[in-house]
Amino acid sequence: MRILVTNDDGVHAPGLLALAEALDTLGEVDVVAPSQGQSGAGHGITFVEPLTADEVKIGGARRAWSVSGTPADCVKLGLQELLPARPDLVVSGINAGANRGVDVLYSGTVAAAAEAALTGIPAAAVSLEKSDGFDFESAAGWALRVLSPVLEDGIPRGQVLNINVPAASRVAARGIRLVPQSLSSWEDGYDRRQDPRGRDYYWLTADEPVPDPQKPSDLGALADGWVTVTPLQFDLTAREQLIAWQGLW
Amino acid sequence: MRILVTNDDGVHAPGLLALAEALDTLGEVDVVAPSQGQSGAGHGITFVEPLTADEVKIGGARRAWSVSGTPADCVKLGLQELLPARPDLVVSGINAGANRGVDVLYSGTVAAAAEAALTGIPAAAVSLEKSDGFDFESAAGWALRVLSPVLEDGIPRGQVLNINVPAASRVAARGIRLVPQSLSSWEDGYDRRQDPRGRDYYWLTADEPVPDPQKPSDLGALADGWVTVTPLQFDLTAREQLIAWQGLW
Repeated sequence: MRILVTNDDGVHAPGLLALAEALDTLGEVDVVAPSQGQSGAGHGITFVEPLTADEVKIGGARRAWSVSGTPADCVKLGLQELLPARPDLVVSGINAGANRGVDVLYSGTVAAAAEAALTGIPAAAVSLEKSDGFDFESAAGWALRVLSPVLEDGIPRGQVLNINVPAASRVAARGIRLVPQSLSSWEDGYDRRQDPRGRDYYWLTADEPVPDPQKPSDLGALADGWVTVTPLQFDLTAREQLIAWQGLW
Repeated sequence: MRILVTNDDGVHAPGLLALAEALDTLGEVDVVAPSQGQSGAGHGITFVEPLTADEVKIGGARRAWSVSGTPADCVKLGLQELLPARPDLVVSGINAGANRGVDVLYSGTVAAAAEAALTGIPAAAVSLEKSDGFDFESAAGWALRVLSPVLEDGIPRGQVLNINVPAASRVAARGIRLVPQSLSSWEDGYDRRQDPRGRDYYWLTADEPVPDPQKPSDLGALADGWVTVTPLQFDLTAREQLIAWQGLW
């Protein structure tokens, strides 16, 4: 089995290396990742300027491609130009910070996996809740435990397995939960400051979304100490409105 | 009614002005848009650096905010800091180029509308198929025709009305069609070149996705000359897998 590993924290991020090392046990791993951190890149792609790719070493001797673009660019360029063969699996991560609830819409980690899924390759995204330190090795172990039975069973075409691991420093993970995505939103705010020349600038601040206690969700289960698994698909059509609005125009 | 207009082609794009002028007939219009073109920005947001906002004039005398970020940033900063009151409607566009099928995942135009929808504001995205020239005034007229009955009926909370208009230079629009999003993918490729110092660089090239003739979709209906309307929602959970994978872990 060939596995492409990518991320949105950049090719030299420790979470990427921990994931690649864990996946070595499953097959032959290639790494193609952004040269710079791309947190919050969403599903951005680069087409108004060209991309470059450099071979680098990570974790000592492991060869990796460093690409001047977004996480989704890394998957596109990897598949079309850089990889010796089409991978059987694409895994993105391990992100330094959770990607649950509406985060999946902003997440470059999830977008890279989505890019692979759209071309028909089974894909997963792995993220570790933020804490004082990140225990990526432990999180990689959880990722393997989640992936093992699903690799046999088969991830449906076009879907992404979105995996979030609670911070080991906060809680000992209670096990694995299969849960839907929460739609609770962040409470946005901006911290307005003035530069030395008197011009305003704005730092995004935001309060964590609050899970609905009545509904099981990735947001709630992660907060409760579970490793969460959410299968994602990318047909956004609101089906019920196709019926409700029939004949309106 | 207060309406926020934004886009991903930048504050000085002609499609933005045409949309704002058309929406003047429905209410009081504010404009907050990126200072630079953000095509392919996806649902990127800016939090590792701060944003700035400048008041500019567009189309002669109309005041607008020019923001140093992504389309989604414009909506966030507009709602939190720049607008005098919370808008009743957010419309993003008119994009110079269609946003149908999997384009909606990469589209900054759609992401700006999604950002508004996530905070509970009714939202729409309007895009005009690429052609030799862009008749944004005609496309704005179609956008109004689509929006009018829906504004009465109400866009469901959390949803975006995604509107695509065929290029007038190619075809006289046949009317309005309510259709699901296509998942046909672009056929990616890269044009590899060498810079004057011998280093490879890669331009993304891609062949248009091909609609499935058996299934009605935004992709197929737009190609056939219809103005397409697709209601989008942002819960990506693949519900059937929540059942299929029950008890797997």
